[in-house]
Amino acid sequence: MTGTFFGNTDALRERYGKITPEILREIQEAAGAKNVVAGDPEALESYASDEAGIMFTSMPDAVVKAESAEQVAAVMKVASKYKIPVTPRGAGSGLAGAAVPLCGGIVLSLEKMNRILEIDPVNRVAVVEPGVVTNELCKAVAEQGFLYAGYPMSTETSFIGGNVATNAGGGKVIRYGNTRRHVLGLEVVLPTGTVLNLGGRIRKDTWGYSLMQLMVGSEGTLGIITRVIVNLEPKPGKTVNLLVAFPDLDSAVDSVAKVVRTGISVISCELMDKLSVNIAASHVNTVLPYQDRADAFLLIQIEGDSDERLEEGYEKVGTLCLENGALEVFVAESRTESGMIWNIRQNLAEAMRAHDPYCSLSGDMVVPLSTVPEMVEEIRKAGKERGIAVGILGHIADGNLHPIIFKPAGMEPMEWAEYAEAFYDDLTSVAIRLGGVGSGEHGIGYVKMPIFLHSKPAEEIEIMRGIKRSFDPDGILNPGKLLGS
Amino acid sequence: MTGTFFGNTDALRERYGKITPEILREIQEAAGAKNVVAGDPEALESYASDEAGIMFTSMPDAVVKAESAEQVAAVMKVASKYKIPVTPRGAGSGLAGAAVPLCGGIVLSLEKMNRILEIDPVNRVAVVEPGVVTNELCKAVAEQGFLYAGYPMSTETSFIGGNVATNAGGGKVIRYGNTRRHVLGLEVVLPTGTVLNLGGRIRKDTWGYSLMQLMVGSEGTLGIITRVIVNLEPKPGKTVNLLVAFPDLDSAVDSVAKVVRTGISVISCELMDKLSVNIAASHVNTVLPYQDRADAFLLIQIEGDSDERLEEGYEKVGTLCLENGALEVFVAESRTESGMIWNIRQNLAEAMRAHDPYCSLSGDMVVPLSTVPEMVEEIRKAGKERGIAVGILGHIADGNLHPIIFKPAGMEPMEWAEYAEAFYDDLTSVAIRLGGVGSGEHGIGYVKMPIFLHSKPAEEIEIMRGIKRSFDPDGILNPGKLLGS
Repeated sequence: MTGTFFGNTDALRERYGKITPEILREIQEAAGAKNVVAGDPEALESYASDEAGIMFTSMPDAVVKAESAEQVAAVMKVASKYKIPVTPRGAGSGLAGAAVPLCGGIVLSLEKMNRILEIDPVNRVAVVEPGVVTNELCKAVAEQGFLYAGYPMSTETSFIGGNVATNAGGGKVIRYGNTRRHVLGLEVVLPTGTVLNLGGRIRKDTWGYSLMQLMVGSEGTLGIITRVIVNLEPKPGKTVNLLVAFPDLDSAVDSVAKVVRTGISVISCELMDKLSVNIAASHVNTVLPYQDRADAFLLIQIEGDSDERLEEGYEKVGTLCLENGALEVFVAESRTESGMIWNIRQNLAEAMRAHDPYCSLSGDMVVPLSTVPEMVEEIRKAGKERGIAVGILGHIADGNLHPIIFKPAGMEPMEWAEYAEAFYDDLTSVAIRLGGVGSGEHGIGYVKMPIFLHSKPAEEIEIMRGIKRSFDPDGILNPGKLLGS
Repeated sequence: MTGTFFGNTDALRERYGKITPEILREIQEAAGAKNVVAGDPEALESYASDEAGIMFTSMPDAVVKAESAEQVAAVMKVASKYKIPVTPRGAGSGLAGAAVPLCGGIVLSLEKMNRILEIDPVNRVAVVEPGVVTNELCKAVAEQGFLYAGYPMSTETSFIGGNVATNAGGGKVIRYGNTRRHVLGLEVVLPTGTVLNLGGRIRKDTWGYSLMQLMVGSEGTLGIITRVIVNLEPKPGKTVNLLVAFPDLDSAVDSVAKVVRTGISVISCELMDKLSVNIAASHVNTVLPYQDRADAFLLIQIEGDSDERLEEGYEKVGTLCLENGALEVFVAESRTESGMIWNIRQNLAEAMRAHDPYCSLSGDMVVPLSTVPEMVEEIRKAGKERGIAVGILGHIADGNLHPIIFKPAGMEPMEWAEYAEAFYDDLTSVAIRLGGVGSGEHGIGYVKMPIFLHSKPAEEIEIMRGIKRSFDPDGILNPGKLLGS
């Protein structure tokens, strides 16, 4: 590869200080020498990109693997003193480039802060460090009879801190909401090194402007999250997974609003089109029933208080889908069958990447449920007009769609990156016209920044810049992301 | 009355322009002459206070009853040009003085913007103007099979816009969350007159800093809400109301965490102590069973998918309360009985005011559920030490307590106001020490501002001031509230 899509960042970099040997020593004193990586390109390289893809790469000058909020605060004081850019990083599983150190400087990795500090059954919260893997938290609280309701598709790898920073969504949003709904408290280190405690083990809080809500989804541009208090839900009742095969995409899409309207408690409703399923099923060496004949699948999880209610629920959903043209409705009879279906959904991103390392996974638009059919049609049209293969999947009951596109053979990577950006920008504009937004869960990072800035009224962006300045007057936190500068 | 608790606001008023006859003409042109009240003290007087009480009164110079966002925007442009203070006002049912025009100027009343614009069953939202009475919305969506889950105790009078501005809570927060959770979109007029549209008919949104979340609970200091898109929930299953009489406050309080732990779906769990019940029951001419013997009541509403599940639920909750010392558990057998019980709870504030017009209703602290017994004990102790009567009620399963205090006979109103403020300030400090905050649903307004500013780290307040400046550089929106200046 001869270049990255970031191109020349010299102008932005010039605003910041460089890490001299003296400054490096101060950083080492702040975080402990063993927690600082510098001068070793091989060790630094894995902090140069995230899941936005290989086109989005930028090397850090140093990586700090902090072990405590105190260390984070001490490092921020040094960074503040010398105006060194700092890019906070969770698992690096983000799809928008938010964890890529665009201007070099320090990557502040939270990977060592990975302890579940407390599960508090009376207040129904867990207190965790930001580097806890989402699924580890889910398992730990399940053992005590609770549900942590965050469920990004990257649950096996993503960190809670990153989930908060991107307001992660995933497969259970229709029932439980995005990560935002489950954040009750945050400990945050400001660029100055001051530590703020926002919220707490409480569910009501009307005590000034909600800086906590502002932190959620701020993608490491306002502060560094060093502790999270999350809401725990009671475990759901009994659940069942349905896999519904449709002869065409339209009838699948059409069924969704009808399923939601039944009032049955739907926990998940995922759409996968033929191309997506073919790539993912082959990646995990499996074949879905009707895979040869179906053009689209819905994966629906529903819950019920009792076996009877559950059966009533899936009978109703199944009948509705069949009336709407479904080829067949499969009720997963066992945990293995359920696991097999969800395995395909969870491995979609990885499978796409294995299929084409240049495939673009950044599409993440959200539209009102009533306009999903129109959005899906626009995605298909855009692929056809540009002559590129598009896989369509998404958390469709939330109106959240992930069109995935593959680089045509022979196209140069740099050309492809621009091509992909233009493709998504056009579709984002469509989503906004339909009353939606450009991202439901991935965030803006670097990848969506141009269209984001373009899509918002100037005064709204100015207010956001004012907010950014209020938290980070020198702009050292994650520069070049979200608002661009 | 010889004065108000605001005292002399001359210094603050001096920062702002005065409404001259010329400016008044411009305001009349902006909003239509028929929508502007000025020069008529009697007509202005009802806009001089809210439910914070008669000590908190300040006359506006003009009241604008806007009919549209366009009129609001036009008025804001005039106000901006001449630096006239503008205090947005919903129903005036707030308990923190946020709707009182501390510096005179314009009260911008949203009372005429009271239309339910649309109930959209596919996207499960309602689109409403800010002046819609909460309960009117509840009734309208119920007719279409939906639930609007906001339920402040002032549901019969408060406006949706005010609910959003204070992030109102109420009796169903344990099940459905505060108003924040149900706001999906806002149309907001900025001080410059620019109209922003935030969010929409969507449930996922990670598209830049969430200005919408920031608006919720900002108490009219950042922008004027002119349209709200609210989430609609499916109607709950069957519900039942239990009234549980306890011989003492402690056993009632103790029972709450246990009830919550059962995992049974609790929609409401309200605490009322003897003093509160006596005043409220007499006000509505009724007597609760065991009222003579009980020292405290819990009002518990639970839901279930079916009659069997519901019965199972209330048997379990009832048994648990009895094991915990309850005198008796009454299951409301009819809608009339349920109505009677809830009527007492809903009329508590009015009853208190009728009992003592100087009673203070501003207490609204929130603590973690695990520390509720300690908080209740501290409230009792504070009352005893100061020799004043305290009624204790609250949304206790949320840890949200409303201690209510009554002016001792013979105490001068001004002395009493200071006395009440000191009382709440001390208890707020206790709540914060226990991991809570000073307000769960009423907001800060003017009443809680001193303790709020005192309780927060300086850097956090500075960030909030930066946010305020980003929205409202001239500080014309609701001056003297929340952040004080």
